[in-house]
Amino acid sequence: MSEDIRHFADELHLLTARLREMGVAAEAQVSRAMRGLVEADRSLLRQVIAGDESINRLHLEIDDRAFKLLALFQPVAVDLRSIVSAVKINSDLERIGDLAVNIAEAADRYLSHAPVKPLVDLPKMAQLAVSMLHQALEAFVSEKISVAQSVLVEDDVLDNLKDQVFRDLLQIMIREPQAVEPGLDLILISRHLERVGDHATNVAEDVIFIVEARDVRHQGGQHVADHD
Amino acid sequence: MSEDIRHFADELHLLTARLREMGVAAEAQVSRAMRGLVEADRSLLRQVIAGDESINRLHLEIDDRAFKLLALFQPVAVDLRSIVSAVKINSDLERIGDLAVNIAEAADRYLSHAPVKPLVDLPKMAQLAVSMLHQALEAFVSEKISVAQSVLVEDDVLDNLKDQVFRDLLQIMIREPQAVEPGLDLILISRHLERVGDHATNVAEDVIFIVEARDVRHQGGQHVADHD
Repeated sequence: MSEDIRHFADELHLLTARLREMGVAAEAQVSRAMRGLVEADRSLLRQVIAGDESINRLHLEIDDRAFKLLALFQPVAVDLRSIVSAVKINSDLERIGDLAVNIAEAADRYLSHAPVKPLVDLPKMAQLAVSMLHQALEAFVSEKISVAQSVLVEDDVLDNLKDQVFRDLLQIMIREPQAVEPGLDLILISRHLERVGDHATNVAEDVIFIVEARDVRHQGGQHVADHD
Repeated sequence: MSEDIRHFADELHLLTARLREMGVAAEAQVSRAMRGLVEADRSLLRQVIAGDESINRLHLEIDDRAFKLLALFQPVAVDLRSIVSAVKINSDLERIGDLAVNIAEAADRYLSHAPVKPLVDLPKMAQLAVSMLHQALEAFVSEKISVAQSVLVEDDVLDNLKDQVFRDLLQIMIREPQAVEPGLDLILISRHLERVGDHATNVAEDVIFIVEARDVRHQGGQHVADHD
């Protein structure tokens, strides 16, 4: 029995490690797509589009690991919450990978036009979105609720930056017809970055859900699920 | 023991029923937002924004039901897959509710400008996206894999319509500076509708995952999870 528990702990640890690895890969994809845009480097954009395959493989592997853990060990309480949350976080990370590809595709279109404006707020948005994702993953691994909560606060900053980008580009697009098409791609990129932040927020919320359940258990389990 | 099984079956049935109810509410929200846009009826748009609250309540209730089912009955195999998939589908439906609100907000902004063009392809997109969601939910309830598969095919049609909307609006926005701002909102609405279709596709994929697991079990369970 104690060997079973050790086996479960090892497998859960491995699941967490794989999820973190996927998160790091998703962060790198977003950063690479934005560097491709800012440095007008199409080879980076192609790397992003090719790199989605390995994230998709991790997505399937992690789902598979989570289902096997649930089926073999039938965990309860906080362990159950952790594993089901891992399935949700896995979906969020996979979507972030897709968004990196969307950014790379829009950047590739953008680079075929004359530049609309110096890119200032979009790189800020990308830095913030990637940092939110990074913190959400750190919060997941360390189970630090304060780190998860700071992600929720930063999401508002990201939304404000997105509105700023929109207002600036709108003015330019109204003045200059040749800016309409490339401007649209920059607006789309700002929306993709906002959604990266939304998914990081989802991860942070899942961490709070897991940790609060753990806290409850540590306080003596007063809040045992009652069934109606 | 047989009473426990009956209790589990009842609870699983209730979970499915609530999820379907939430899906119907999400469908109605998307349709209402689009009717508000097409009929220039702001009271419908306000209803959509106010109506998100009840979808969010269902979201929490369904997650709670799913976790209690997992914790109390520790289901395995296909039942486990159904319930974890229910948690994922629940997230997809909640996002569709959010997208309906995003559509209503963009429609509200759009209605404060002169109309850019007669709306033809956007209502088509909405009809298709809502129909995809409807079919995905029917596939979930009936476990009909063929219905789920038809949703995947329709997603390509939706993407093509989105590209058509984009090309048409782009031409108008380049020609007419006063069309830039309202045109942007129509483009955003087309992206929101595309994402409704993406979430319907996620639901359909989850249904295929559940049903294929059931098929495997019905074939004598050759594909029992092996643990590495």
